[in-house]
Amino acid sequence: MKLFSHEFYLTAAEVNAQREMPLSRLVTLIIDTATGHANAIGIGFDRMISYGISWVLSRLTIDIKRPLTVNRAYRIDTWIENLNRMFSERNFELVDMETGEPIAWAHSTWMAINMETRRPSDLTMLTEMKDSINGRPYPYIKGGKLLPVIDATVEHTYRFAVSDIDVNRHVTTRRYIDLIVDQWSIEQFDNNRVTRFEIAFKHEARYGELSRTVSAPHEGSPEVFDVMTEVNSTPCAIARIHFTQR
Amino acid sequence: MKLFSHEFYLTAAEVNAQREMPLSRLVTLIIDTATGHANAIGIGFDRMISYGISWVLSRLTIDIKRPLTVNRAYRIDTWIENLNRMFSERNFELVDMETGEPIAWAHSTWMAINMETRRPSDLTMLTEMKDSINGRPYPYIKGGKLLPVIDATVEHTYRFAVSDIDVNRHVTTRRYIDLIVDQWSIEQFDNNRVTRFEIAFKHEARYGELSRTVSAPHEGSPEVFDVMTEVNSTPCAIARIHFTQR
Repeated sequence: MKLFSHEFYLTAAEVNAQREMPLSRLVTLIIDTATGHANAIGIGFDRMISYGISWVLSRLTIDIKRPLTVNRAYRIDTWIENLNRMFSERNFELVDMETGEPIAWAHSTWMAINMETRRPSDLTMLTEMKDSINGRPYPYIKGGKLLPVIDATVEHTYRFAVSDIDVNRHVTTRRYIDLIVDQWSIEQFDNNRVTRFEIAFKHEARYGELSRTVSAPHEGSPEVFDVMTEVNSTPCAIARIHFTQR
Repeated sequence: MKLFSHEFYLTAAEVNAQREMPLSRLVTLIIDTATGHANAIGIGFDRMISYGISWVLSRLTIDIKRPLTVNRAYRIDTWIENLNRMFSERNFELVDMETGEPIAWAHSTWMAINMETRRPSDLTMLTEMKDSINGRPYPYIKGGKLLPVIDATVEHTYRFAVSDIDVNRHVTTRRYIDLIVDQWSIEQFDNNRVTRFEIAFKHEARYGELSRTVSAPHEGSPEVFDVMTEVNSTPCAIARIHFTQR
């Protein structure tokens, strides 16, 4: 199956103050759609865990041409662009089903980690995955290296609590994204929308740990910011967020 | 339509550290299912807003016989038990679709608030709603008055941020529930499960406000706790949570 699609409808209960899909919800849906495709081709969580390995999202880049607004039907298409021993690259396209127009894209990089040794497994062994490769490229820039934030201009601390912890006893992806978004005031999102978002996951935080999220303008830009969440001076997630004035 | 049903599947990405549905997710699904029924009978958000009124959840009680576990299909049935000028009462039953067994129930009380005057609207005007009444009663105790917590034994403060704000610019229901759950350590949920949860919504908190969540054993009980989230000494949500040892 070289293309997998999932349809959804954005309800009023799911949207943010700007009547749009929150970034953390978009990331969750992207991961859910990837999981759906992996299950459909026989390389899902359950099958992988029987080999003692688990999928880990390493990098994600999202480009948003138009915001996803309330009371609309959407479709997410996903496909595997390629894979090598270490990484697989998976792309996504979001289509507004009322107009048929693609309005957002995402590129993701995944590893399969051996749960005991914590080392990457050889992905070229997964023949079902190789057979599903669809070479269609990502239409934007895939995103480069993200470096730790040095001269932070905004800083928040937060201790991870019960509601932040997932089935693997790590902090959820949703919480990392919300900590990033929460670096700004609500006026920032009233006046600007997110047009590009890049994130690299570096280290898994756990229950009870005290996190520090810092951000700074990227190379002095008023519209692009570097953000990092760290625990005990170890970066957990490093991100870059691009705003565009409404 | 005197009974409305919605089916869902609980994925690994949605569950908590105990591989069960988080309480905040259950509450969100209950509200979504109520919204689905309201839309289906023509008294949904869009129709109500055209009259300048909006649904407000006032009280919710949940009884959980068995926890909702990962990788299972569930169904939520909902129906309107009755209504008067001020309130409508809506019940829910959660059915494990693999066994056909009902495993949880919920009772909710809703008001319709005039958005300008902030006063309750007369629900008996909604003839579609009266025609949809299904008198089937709630099988547990509906839940009594919840009083503000006086002698708190646990206290956390939290400032509401961008990711906590909904389409009406109020704090989301999900955030209130998570603040309550986060009063305890992860070990509390490893050793106990929630078997009953009651909450009353008293006041809408807003972006940037500093909240204080406090809890205390209910009448000295080791298994039942009273919890309250307040802003500027005004209670926003008052809850009671019943744990049962696993």
